Amino acid sequence: MKEIYMDNNATTKVDEAVFEEMRPYFCDLYGNPSSMHFFGGQVQKKVDEARNRVANLLGASPEEIVFTACGTESDNAAIRSAIEVHPERRHIITTRVEHPAVLTLCRNLSKRGYRVTELNVDGEGRLDLNELRAAVDEDTAIVSVMWANNETGVVFPIEEVGKIVKEKGKGAFFHTDAVQAVGKIPINMAASTVDMLSISGHKLHAPKGIGVLYVRKGVPFRPFMVGGHQEHNRRAGTENTAAIIALGKACELAGQWMEDENTRVKAMRDRLQTTLLELIPRSRINGGQAERLPNTLSIAFEFVEGEAILMLLSEKGICASSGSACTSGSLEPSHVLRAMGVPFTCAHGSIRFSLSRFNTDEDIETIIRELPPVVRRLREMSPFGREFLNA
Amino acid sequence: MKEIYMDNNATTKVDEAVFEEMRPYFCDLYGNPSSMHFFGGQVQKKVDEARNRVANLLGASPEEIVFTACGTESDNAAIRSAIEVHPERRHIITTRVEHPAVLTLCRNLSKRGYRVTELNVDGEGRLDLNELRAAVDEDTAIVSVMWANNETGVVFPIEEVGKIVKEKGKGAFFHTDAVQAVGKIPINMAASTVDMLSISGHKLHAPKGIGVLYVRKGVPFRPFMVGGHQEHNRRAGTENTAAIIALGKACELAGQWMEDENTRVKAMRDRLQTTLLELIPRSRINGGQAERLPNTLSIAFEFVEGEAILMLLSEKGICASSGSACTSGSLEPSHVLRAMGVPFTCAHGSIRFSLSRFNTDEDIETIIRELPPVVRRLREMSPFGREFLNA
Repeated sequence: MKEIYMDNNATTKVDEAVFEEMRPYFCDLYGNPSSMHFFGGQVQKKVDEARNRVANLLGASPEEIVFTACGTESDNAAIRSAIEVHPERRHIITTRVEHPAVLTLCRNLSKRGYRVTELNVDGEGRLDLNELRAAVDEDTAIVSVMWANNETGVVFPIEEVGKIVKEKGKGAFFHTDAVQAVGKIPINMAASTVDMLSISGHKLHAPKGIGVLYVRKGVPFRPFMVGGHQEHNRRAGTENTAAIIALGKACELAGQWMEDENTRVKAMRDRLQTTLLELIPRSRINGGQAERLPNTLSIAFEFVEGEAILMLLSEKGICASSGSACTSGSLEPSHVLRAMGVPFTCAHGSIRFSLSRFNTDEDIETIIRELPPVVRRLREMSPFGREFLNA
Repeated sequence: MKEIYMDNNATTKVDEAVFEEMRPYFCDLYGNPSSMHFFGGQVQKKVDEARNRVANLLGASPEEIVFTACGTESDNAAIRSAIEVHPERRHIITTRVEHPAVLTLCRNLSKRGYRVTELNVDGEGRLDLNELRAAVDEDTAIVSVMWANNETGVVFPIEEVGKIVKEKGKGAFFHTDAVQAVGKIPINMAASTVDMLSISGHKLHAPKGIGVLYVRKGVPFRPFMVGGHQEHNRRAGTENTAAIIALGKACELAGQWMEDENTRVKAMRDRLQTTLLELIPRSRINGGQAERLPNTLSIAFEFVEGEAILMLLSEKGICASSGSACTSGSLEPSHVLRAMGVPFTCAHGSIRFSLSRFNTDEDIETIIRELPPVVRRLREMSPFGREFLNA
């Protein structure tokens, strides 16, 4: 069965060109770039090239790029660094819709005496900047606000957030988890208020196990992982050379595909959205009125269970998600949809399609054909659903 | 130029069979194992298999295996967990010859009020167990002692260490950085005093960017990286599936090659050692009287600079090391050799050959042919060396 993969906010296919770029660095050019001999030196040059490529996508300088193992590490490292640099500040600000890599850490810190403000969002998943303005003060060590939400695709006004942080926080750091944004929408650190920014390689067609923490030049930083002198003393551990080289290539490609993402991919997402809303009664888009990533569609169907829809789609080779893979396995409805005040019956029946450049019009047509009968069948099985169908 | 690679304690070639095992998980089976759909589920099965393979090599249970990004992360995670579990205990014990991933963290903690005991070693790199016995007490949160030293290959009597920790530490945790030991000498956690043990994939022919922290069943553990529920809540972050699968295969192969390592590889190392000692006057083996890994040879040549030797060997395609790649770039002689009291003139002239199953007798013959004239040439250039040669 050929799968239709629409779970790209969970993880992506490694681009074949990315794979080819990294391939020699496993069995042939496997030297440690920190080694003295020529064999390690060859690899160092490719690692430098990769750092430049990542920097280019971000409008950053190569020395601002710190390679990590994943987005989670980048998020943890940014927040831990900020509170170490500002030991006297005891306040952290984040949002109720963050990824667990930020939110869980902040909640752990709140148990250790930190005051943690979790900003609310409205029914469309949008931040209230006045709430932020009222919360930031000179006790704030760090504000960590995601660039785009993994579940709904809602994009936050990062530069407006940053302006408030800089103005009212007087030295508070501004971190953004940009794991879902980088590669999908243009990012330019050269003209940004962001101090630290997290990237995950496997969300943009690089392999799993590689991430980046962008750290603006001049921003004091304390390493999360300590040991060797790698990454200019900012992240210990032997460089994951093959994956770094892969991420460099993936960033180069992401720059080239950016327009496609924001035109063709967006058009496919929009067609899927419009058609499903038309064909399936009592469906609504989560965050539909907000600015969103071009590839993400979170859609709620009343009276059905999202997980049941996913199972039936999966049988037809269609891969989607009920929310974040990082929180799956729990029966609680998504913390993002709850924060948005999505009614319980809708939150439970929400599924996320997240597209990539590898999707085709045919994929969209298949989903448009397969999904409506699935929802209908499930509604027929549910007491509330039957009531609605018979009304 | 065909290289002769003898820097396997820095990093290793990914075994071709390991590469083939991981290869489908980049561009084809790239699903997130935490996803609901069939596409993630397929990958989960291979991750489970890999966990079993790692556990088998260690004589452990699969649920005791926590996948991390690298040995450094495993080391950091073990120590951080122990001090969080025992917040009232303020003492940490390690050794002066540990890898920086342990030593730097312990020194950082000593600046934050922890009492840190760094155990000494003798001239052969051996621990004094009486010093350990005198140091461990009920204030000790963790004892972290490496299984085998990366620079000299000296093997510590881990189970004797563990017995003392358990007897005198009353609840103190025992962690060992076994990054250099696993895959080279037999390890059996089923009959061990070790609570936590660190592995690095790229030291045993798996790729860089994957490690393991073994955590004994029943040992309380607090995650270092927090966020998602991966690894049974012990390590957040999307599973690095391809690398995990690779590490599983690498561990399976390590088990199969263990005998070769301890017979053929050891014989090659021994021949190299004996012949170089014969051919090069004023040379000595660092740790030569101690129990050592079968693959490691740290040899000191008086009156020369190790880095100069490495450069000249590198020109002939021979890759060796002056110590740890993680501390290279600094002009200080190795902290390991200093701790052993190796005289300054020898410590500076020390180089390390670390073999693997991919080395051949021909490699050994080449080094035996090429190295003595290199040392002689360098001695002729050095005032102390000339004095000695003319004596």
